[in-house]
Amino acid sequence: MNPVAPVAVPVTPAAPEVPEVGFPDLSRLVQPRNILVVGGSRRPNSEGARLLENLAVHSRTGGELFVVNPSMESDERYTCWRSIADLPPAQIDVALIMVRAALVLDALRDCAARRIPFAVVMSSGFGEAGEEGRRMEAGIRALCAATGLRVYGPNCPGLTNLRDRIGMTFSPAFRTDINAGPIGIVTQGGGSGRNLLQGLSHGIGAALWMSAGNEVDLGAPDFIAHMATDPDIRVIAILLEGVSRGRDLIAALKLARQHGKPVVIMKLGKSEYGVRAAQSHTGSLAGATEVNSAVFRQFGAVEVDELDDLVAVARLLASPCRPSSRRLAVVTFSGGAAGMAADQVGIHKLELARFGSDTVEQLRAALPAYAAVENPVDVTSEALKSMEAFALCLRTVARDPDVGAVVIPVPADYAAVTDAIGKAIVDVAGQVDKPLVPVWLSRRLGGGFETMERHGLAPFFSLSKALSALEKAMPDGGATEGAAAHETQAHASAGLVACNEAVAKQRLAQAEIAVPRGVLAGSPSEAADAAVSMGFPVVLKVASPQILHKTEVGGVRLNLSSAEAVRSHYEEIIERVGALRPDAVIDGVLVERMFDGKGREVLVGVHTDAVYGRVITVGLGGIFVELIKDVSHRVLPIGPDDAMQMIDELRYRRVFDPFRDRPAADLPALVRLLVKVSGFVMAHPEIVEMEINPVWVGPEGEGAFALDALILATPTH
Amino acid sequence: MNPVAPVAVPVTPAAPEVPEVGFPDLSRLVQPRNILVVGGSRRPNSEGARLLENLAVHSRTGGELFVVNPSMESDERYTCWRSIADLPPAQIDVALIMVRAALVLDALRDCAARRIPFAVVMSSGFGEAGEEGRRMEAGIRALCAATGLRVYGPNCPGLTNLRDRIGMTFSPAFRTDINAGPIGIVTQGGGSGRNLLQGLSHGIGAALWMSAGNEVDLGAPDFIAHMATDPDIRVIAILLEGVSRGRDLIAALKLARQHGKPVVIMKLGKSEYGVRAAQSHTGSLAGATEVNSAVFRQFGAVEVDELDDLVAVARLLASPCRPSSRRLAVVTFSGGAAGMAADQVGIHKLELARFGSDTVEQLRAALPAYAAVENPVDVTSEALKSMEAFALCLRTVARDPDVGAVVIPVPADYAAVTDAIGKAIVDVAGQVDKPLVPVWLSRRLGGGFETMERHGLAPFFSLSKALSALEKAMPDGGATEGAAAHETQAHASAGLVACNEAVAKQRLAQAEIAVPRGVLAGSPSEAADAAVSMGFPVVLKVASPQILHKTEVGGVRLNLSSAEAVRSHYEEIIERVGALRPDAVIDGVLVERMFDGKGREVLVGVHTDAVYGRVITVGLGGIFVELIKDVSHRVLPIGPDDAMQMIDELRYRRVFDPFRDRPAADLPALVRLLVKVSGFVMAHPEIVEMEINPVWVGPEGEGAFALDALILATPTH
Repeated sequence: MNPVAPVAVPVTPAAPEVPEVGFPDLSRLVQPRNILVVGGSRRPNSEGARLLENLAVHSRTGGELFVVNPSMESDERYTCWRSIADLPPAQIDVALIMVRAALVLDALRDCAARRIPFAVVMSSGFGEAGEEGRRMEAGIRALCAATGLRVYGPNCPGLTNLRDRIGMTFSPAFRTDINAGPIGIVTQGGGSGRNLLQGLSHGIGAALWMSAGNEVDLGAPDFIAHMATDPDIRVIAILLEGVSRGRDLIAALKLARQHGKPVVIMKLGKSEYGVRAAQSHTGSLAGATEVNSAVFRQFGAVEVDELDDLVAVARLLASPCRPSSRRLAVVTFSGGAAGMAADQVGIHKLELARFGSDTVEQLRAALPAYAAVENPVDVTSEALKSMEAFALCLRTVARDPDVGAVVIPVPADYAAVTDAIGKAIVDVAGQVDKPLVPVWLSRRLGGGFETMERHGLAPFFSLSKALSALEKAMPDGGATEGAAAHETQAHASAGLVACNEAVAKQRLAQAEIAVPRGVLAGSPSEAADAAVSMGFPVVLKVASPQILHKTEVGGVRLNLSSAEAVRSHYEEIIERVGALRPDAVIDGVLVERMFDGKGREVLVGVHTDAVYGRVITVGLGGIFVELIKDVSHRVLPIGPDDAMQMIDELRYRRVFDPFRDRPAADLPALVRLLVKVSGFVMAHPEIVEMEINPVWVGPEGEGAFALDALILATPTH
Repeated sequence: MNPVAPVAVPVTPAAPEVPEVGFPDLSRLVQPRNILVVGGSRRPNSEGARLLENLAVHSRTGGELFVVNPSMESDERYTCWRSIADLPPAQIDVALIMVRAALVLDALRDCAARRIPFAVVMSSGFGEAGEEGRRMEAGIRALCAATGLRVYGPNCPGLTNLRDRIGMTFSPAFRTDINAGPIGIVTQGGGSGRNLLQGLSHGIGAALWMSAGNEVDLGAPDFIAHMATDPDIRVIAILLEGVSRGRDLIAALKLARQHGKPVVIMKLGKSEYGVRAAQSHTGSLAGATEVNSAVFRQFGAVEVDELDDLVAVARLLASPCRPSSRRLAVVTFSGGAAGMAADQVGIHKLELARFGSDTVEQLRAALPAYAAVENPVDVTSEALKSMEAFALCLRTVARDPDVGAVVIPVPADYAAVTDAIGKAIVDVAGQVDKPLVPVWLSRRLGGGFETMERHGLAPFFSLSKALSALEKAMPDGGATEGAAAHETQAHASAGLVACNEAVAKQRLAQAEIAVPRGVLAGSPSEAADAAVSMGFPVVLKVASPQILHKTEVGGVRLNLSSAEAVRSHYEEIIERVGALRPDAVIDGVLVERMFDGKGREVLVGVHTDAVYGRVITVGLGGIFVELIKDVSHRVLPIGPDDAMQMIDELRYRRVFDPFRDRPAADLPALVRLLVKVSGFVMAHPEIVEMEINPVWVGPEGEGAFALDALILATPTH
């Protein structure tokens, strides 16, 4: 073909991707000295009392606490004021508002008048409650725009600063939020943020949890931007129910990337149901799932699907010893668990490390003769009689330079034995610089589990969760792996007999499987005569039992429209095939009517499985056979119901539906063909393999035809 | 087209699918009275001593226990004999062999001579240990064939009968295997079977665990067949490391189906790594993953991927109140958890039930005004102040006739509050006939978790695991769901201006995006002249700003080879389009060179996302755009690296590789085109949407051309 001359298209670098967003400086909000509470209470167990207690008893602000509440009197603990206007002239960093919704706007006005820079509104009853609430939110937004006051909330659990121990929250759990660490948490709702803190309560912990509920002013992008520049935060974990400021989110993700902070993100609304539930909760836009995922990928954030994954991946990324490569070791004491772990390594497109010979020798010296010392390592239960041997193996494997991380599946709880294993894993974790990733597979969470949990190793509950988290925490975490290299399956033709297409089709026709009318021509003029008598256009195909893939040797010509074309292509075929395959006996050239593009191309095959015997396959045909591999299988024989189910199982079954100007496909004919193939093969035990590719499935009522066929049989018949 | 007349193909019912397999009667093996132990020991904590203790102390056989061990003397507990030949004349049902490998065959010969019908060989050192071991296995197999002795093992943990309390095993855990129930367990290895028993140690329990290690004679198919006919077993849970008797497995699965016993199965070897590990453990064939899965589906078994799924699905299927429909309710006290659960319902192709008006009214009466009383139900944390309200809601929802099961996500541990929730869930579970499925999302496993666990409710640790198990345990469990109905996205064209293809292509050409040479012809003869001057074959396309999808109104003709054909098709187009779209203004017919089949068709589009702004999409084009939807996205603008990443992210990226006689695609040209489109759109803020479909991407060096284009813009320009 001759394409028209391409226009020269020089490549230019992309312009700056998004206009720079200026994020507010939140340091006085996050690390306030003087704090004002508007509201508060002394009633035991009330949210107001818990807020005051968190601030007065469990926090370390180094500043003063002011309480504005007309119905509270001062005492030795709290100094109370009637109104904000009455407060003495101190510089207040944050006002925490906990009055009912109708009073919030007035309180905020007073704060703005007093030049308090930040207010955290915990009260509910705003956008989430209906029209009146949305009106009040608009009022807050207008106040912010007019005065420069920045508002966090409303309808939020407050702000928890674990690193500096400042609990601007009414949560009774704050007193136990003591495991500070390098993870920053951004959420919108309260329950899920609490979940994340509980997930980070041992081992690697959180520095800061920001959760601004309805996000009427400040929101997730501002918090991410703050954490991106906070030197104590190494990883940012984000749970989003909705995204209302898409461009700002992008700018914040870019900022995090600039500062080398990994971001792990979970976004609700992956299904239509999730979108609906998220909307009713936060009122912010859910955004199309695919676009959200694409944005996260584009700007370097790792996306996860569930809360436990969010905790696990953040943990791995924040660990001082992150996985150093995609090559993993598996160490266990059960052959089954070794197999399952290896399986999951493969499923998640990770690799099993290859141990150095030193490693293998040390393992062999330490373990029984029948232990598996190649990766995956099965030390066997015998080896557990001495826990030193187990610890030695674990240490040896973790120190092998090819190993990026060690997965340790514990198949069941064996009381004292697994108690000791838990302890050994904790010990070795302190001695090596690779992540040890224990997976506690049993529902019985014994002492071994608890030891590891208490020491912050956070055993996974399933291998798929562990391997998925490792995959996402890998150096090239978010990157898509290229699809596994495709390998064409070689025909197991050793000692088998193939018959040429014309003979194969004769046998099919005898078995009542429809084939196109065809003539095996021995010369160009025989071929041309046959074509004229059957009508144009026609197809020519070389006929030779030695040639299984005719296209590849230039043995097929499609869509020939004249006797002249048939004659010249006949000669070309003989010449070309003769040159490329001098070994092949050519029986002639098969002339057939050409089937048009209104049909669907389908593949039907039979092969012999070593375990189950002969298996039939149906799938989409043509070039897409090998590309998409959309196929389904059944053990032979099958009936019409099986055949229909096979078709229904295809991922792209919709290809048979009407599409634009193509009517629906003749599926009843395809079903009949499949059942006939089944019967034919069952009647011929000598058939080892056969392939009809393509089957042309016409529009409804026009039948299904085997356009090409290959049969491989044992030579007994 | 005229297909040749189809051959009449009457449909005949499928012949019997597999030759009937006669399975051995295992009742004397499973429920023996008199048992012989060959081996045994008195050394504390040895396997031999534990086996004897399990039989003598913790089992209830109602028969006698004989011990053959030349180095053990009789005492008050065990009567010992020097050899099998010395035994008194009692009818022995099973011999348990625990001597070292080299002595096993002789012991089995003695058993056969004594007409003992079954032997369980626990000793290791056989096929798994190497050549010598495989030779001994062949010897055992020959002995079985010659004598009728049936052997279970070797290299196995024995046989655990919980229902009748017979522990033919050396496991120290047998004494605590007391939670008998309706599940039959078949495994090959020991550790994973122990895992399953621990998973079933509360609530629904197991009746029988059979695990024959190397399966030299009896194996998984025999055990499944036994369980299929055992009246106390309702569900069979199977973990296979390898399948060596495929046809027998099929026969056993069919038998289970005939007896109405659901089968849940997990098969190792889903990845190449898993296959390798499984082979080293059991030496049996792993079988191709897809064929195994197809066999399980064909014969009605539910396949799962992990051990915890195996336990969870078996539990749900064995429950007296199985899920009654695919329509689920979600009850929780956190908006975020409600959203996540709803999301997972959608992802797993399940549905949210629609509550009756009675249900909604009762919920409204019991809950605060701002609670969500439609499914998913968010009772709000407020409602937890009275646990009666929570229990009432749960009961009401579970009794709604549209609800098949209730998912209850608990987002975090709230000490006393979640302790009470756990108790309430246990209480309500006893009052309703639908499954309550609690999901404990927090890593902190508090009192609420423990209460539910102890009462056998087995809370899930993640929503995806819970919904996946529910999906598999549904009445039509294994069945494949039809792909979700496809909906073509409507153009958001309200108030927008579209330009015709010729104009759109002009604009692209100005932006240095390559387009085919084309002429907008106003008459048949103008079209024919244009075609002659550019060379055949050509394409004709109607040009009208009102017609976005030209093919659908008969406005496109491909592959025209003569001036005559161009003239006649021009007239047909005008006539046809005029009749179908009398509203459309026709600017003429575009004549272009036809691009051939050596190129790949790609779609490039831009749309405006409500959250992120303009987004570019690349994907496979042609008919497969809508069928496969293999696309990737980026927020604009993009540079060449982004463009290449977009291409690399396509699932079927391999379509661009060389294939048979097609050379590799000109990806650098596609990359340039994507970057140019980005620049073009960035320079034109008025463009809301555009689509180039197809882009023809030629073989290497031949460029990429926009063969069709549509631009939608705001009318400001």
